[in-house]
Amino acid sequence: MIKKGLLIVISGPSGAGKGTICKEWLRRHPQTVLSVSVTTRPPRPGEKEGINYFFRTPEEFEKMRGENEFLECAEVYGHAYGTPKKYVQQHLMAGQDVILEIDIQGALQVKDRFEKGVFLFVVPPTMDELKKRITKRGTEGRDVILKRFHCAFEEINFIKRYNYIIVNDTVEEAVQKMEAILLAEKCRVDRNEELILQIQGGI
Amino acid sequence: MIKKGLLIVISGPSGAGKGTICKEWLRRHPQTVLSVSVTTRPPRPGEKEGINYFFRTPEEFEKMRGENEFLECAEVYGHAYGTPKKYVQQHLMAGQDVILEIDIQGALQVKDRFEKGVFLFVVPPTMDELKKRITKRGTEGRDVILKRFHCAFEEINFIKRYNYIIVNDTVEEAVQKMEAILLAEKCRVDRNEELILQIQGGI
Repeated sequence: MIKKGLLIVISGPSGAGKGTICKEWLRRHPQTVLSVSVTTRPPRPGEKEGINYFFRTPEEFEKMRGENEFLECAEVYGHAYGTPKKYVQQHLMAGQDVILEIDIQGALQVKDRFEKGVFLFVVPPTMDELKKRITKRGTEGRDVILKRFHCAFEEINFIKRYNYIIVNDTVEEAVQKMEAILLAEKCRVDRNEELILQIQGGI
Repeated sequence: MIKKGLLIVISGPSGAGKGTICKEWLRRHPQTVLSVSVTTRPPRPGEKEGINYFFRTPEEFEKMRGENEFLECAEVYGHAYGTPKKYVQQHLMAGQDVILEIDIQGALQVKDRFEKGVFLFVVPPTMDELKKRITKRGTEGRDVILKRFHCAFEEINFIKRYNYIIVNDTVEEAVQKMEAILLAEKCRVDRNEELILQIQGGI
């Protein structure tokens, strides 16, 4: 039997460092599939089609949404983002773990549609740290930064819908916690129905 | 703030190897407290009072039960066993993890009374292996062995009341899984209420 993969949803306020954690995770676990989102946002310098995002026009995006092709989709800072459902399901069925790095709005939609996912909420060690991280990125204007900071404050309240909280003290520790969480989840009784049937059949 | 410890209940059919796993766990994690049970069973050669068990007469045991001093108690193969509640709670409150190695009947009682515990069900790699392990211990007669084997078959059905299943392929792997499970459990949102309040208070 092929064991189905796990869907790992890594989320949290903007600036918590989830991107860095994902990058380090994928460096250590190259067999994990990173879900690539569809977006209407124009590419930033260096971003590549099919690697960072699938870049689509608003019209193309709407067509996909109409055909129910997203596991989640949301508008963030004026642009649409969506996770292609088929892409994720194909990899899970093939036994590969899939990691979704998405904003909180998106994560909550996935939670409604795919509650067997593992939902990780990443927070910075302190809220001051969050403020620093949000403001020091420096590629956007003041309005965007303020808006993002305000969202971070509001969104933290959704933490209770997640399974795990990861305090991002260091990337090293955060990734170690993720490794533990994945191994533990794979031992959960409710994820091992086939194994339990096998054991019961053997007695 | 002192973080409360975790109660780890390690259980499973007799002969699954939970004793060996506990021993290796304690060798690697000497800060974990092993809960010492009260029993009316006479000491086996080499067993020490207060280390392996608190050995009590049936009358003393009944008095404790009457005063509600057990987190669980059960009769197994004609002898009474109980986990002293105070002993466990004191260590948890002091921030120490406590490990309970108990039979399935006892574990289910703890589950009813202390559902915040982490419930691990250990199974041997195959049921043949269980049979071998049960029969090769060789310190008891044929009747005891047969009774134990029959119980193992019946008890496996309780697995769904546990949180995790650990297949005891090797002690090394089993302990690694336990380590992952403990670290993961400590990251669970529902075990981090104080941390979440702190984060919310900081914004």
